[in-house]
Amino acid sequence: MSERAIGVFDSGVGGLTVLKELSRQLPEEELVYLGDTARVPYGTKSPATVTRYALEAAAFLVSLGVKALVVACNTASAVALPALAARYQMPVFGVIGPGAARALQLSRGRRIGVIGTEGTIKSEAYARALHQLDSRVHVFGVPCPLFVPLAEEGWADHPIAHMAASEYLMPLLTEKIDTLVLGCTHYPLLKNTLSQVLGPQIALVDSAEETAAAVACRLNEDSLTRHTPCSPHRFFVTDVPDRFERVGGAFWGEPLHGVKQVEIG
Amino acid sequence: MSERAIGVFDSGVGGLTVLKELSRQLPEEELVYLGDTARVPYGTKSPATVTRYALEAAAFLVSLGVKALVVACNTASAVALPALAARYQMPVFGVIGPGAARALQLSRGRRIGVIGTEGTIKSEAYARALHQLDSRVHVFGVPCPLFVPLAEEGWADHPIAHMAASEYLMPLLTEKIDTLVLGCTHYPLLKNTLSQVLGPQIALVDSAEETAAAVACRLNEDSLTRHTPCSPHRFFVTDVPDRFERVGGAFWGEPLHGVKQVEIG
Repeated sequence: MSERAIGVFDSGVGGLTVLKELSRQLPEEELVYLGDTARVPYGTKSPATVTRYALEAAAFLVSLGVKALVVACNTASAVALPALAARYQMPVFGVIGPGAARALQLSRGRRIGVIGTEGTIKSEAYARALHQLDSRVHVFGVPCPLFVPLAEEGWADHPIAHMAASEYLMPLLTEKIDTLVLGCTHYPLLKNTLSQVLGPQIALVDSAEETAAAVACRLNEDSLTRHTPCSPHRFFVTDVPDRFERVGGAFWGEPLHGVKQVEIG
Repeated sequence: MSERAIGVFDSGVGGLTVLKELSRQLPEEELVYLGDTARVPYGTKSPATVTRYALEAAAFLVSLGVKALVVACNTASAVALPALAARYQMPVFGVIGPGAARALQLSRGRRIGVIGTEGTIKSEAYARALHQLDSRVHVFGVPCPLFVPLAEEGWADHPIAHMAASEYLMPLLTEKIDTLVLGCTHYPLLKNTLSQVLGPQIALVDSAEETAAAVACRLNEDSLTRHTPCSPHRFFVTDVPDRFERVGGAFWGEPLHGVKQVEIG
């Protein structure tokens, strides 16, 4: 069982920031990634629709024989985790719990901002996760719909990104947050721009890093850590691969090749 | 037959700018609109996927007994029109032919710019349509992925939109275009910003206006024009209606209510 791959899915390229962290923290593990690019984005869609899509994505990965599932998408983590956990016995990880836990560790004044897609913010999943850990925390959520196309356009450090960040983060600065959770897997690409707007006093939480750490910890606990050199990672998408390969390179950190198209659902 | 409704579809809210023009130019006609919001956007997806979605959307409208189909989406018009025309006997209209014809009427120097989604620009559908009408025309296409989220965010007149427009249109100004086609149904909301960046010498072509005129003309030719007062327009979406109702109001020009969710495909 420990020699099996870890299955990771997202609606598109964003989850590759999580995959990259998994690969960095667990270099011996084989990773299988599915980007549901025929139905991207999940962030503007309803909980029922996103849950259906997530179950279909998970079923595809499970059919490949994975030992664990990582929902590398904040929107799907926000709404579909209970349905996934109910259907499968294997460990299922979302990105929200680990990000929330880390934010509480870093926050001194318990004033935490969360930025993400409309779906993630509207779900209030981070607020719920944070309040479960500490009922005294104040959570301020702001949807930032421009950040995904800015990251995919390669404009993460462009003056337009800076202006959009200033606009979106203004209410969070007014609320005097001390910690900001990047509640969308695209947003790590905007870290520099966000840091410039926020200044050095506000801590940034990258859920990708925290999720990979949680996976590493749990695999170790469950004696599921792989001990032989891993096979090459595999990448699947539900639309033709060319755009995923072209845009995804910046998220994965190196060129993407050999991405295969599959039908799910 | 003439008393039947006109079926109009798009991937989301954008096509409402076409619906609005149809309603203005053909106030007696009953309109049925489908926004495929569970699978929006089409603009980053492959021709095969978009064609499949368009056929499913059309099949839904045809099942309601419409007398004509309007593909109020540039991406779907660019790739799926032949498949739709092959399947149905009724008139099927896209937004590209009418926009291209109007651009040629307005252009004095035969240097025409086209802006749209990645899918529309990559398809080169406007370039083909323009070259079929006049082989001497020069066509310059630029994808503008930020414009859709800017329009949906209500930032069409925001300095960020102005900066993005300056960035995207710069190569077209360098090419000294005299006419610009708004090759995406979202873009009419950005007309003011685009005009400011382009100046008064460059003509703007709004495909929604031209498409509605083409529909009016053809219905008249085919004796399909309605002669009795129309029933209220009907709106359908494939995801839950709340976001469509909220964001779509700015596109339709008045509040949207009573939008129904349906399953297609």
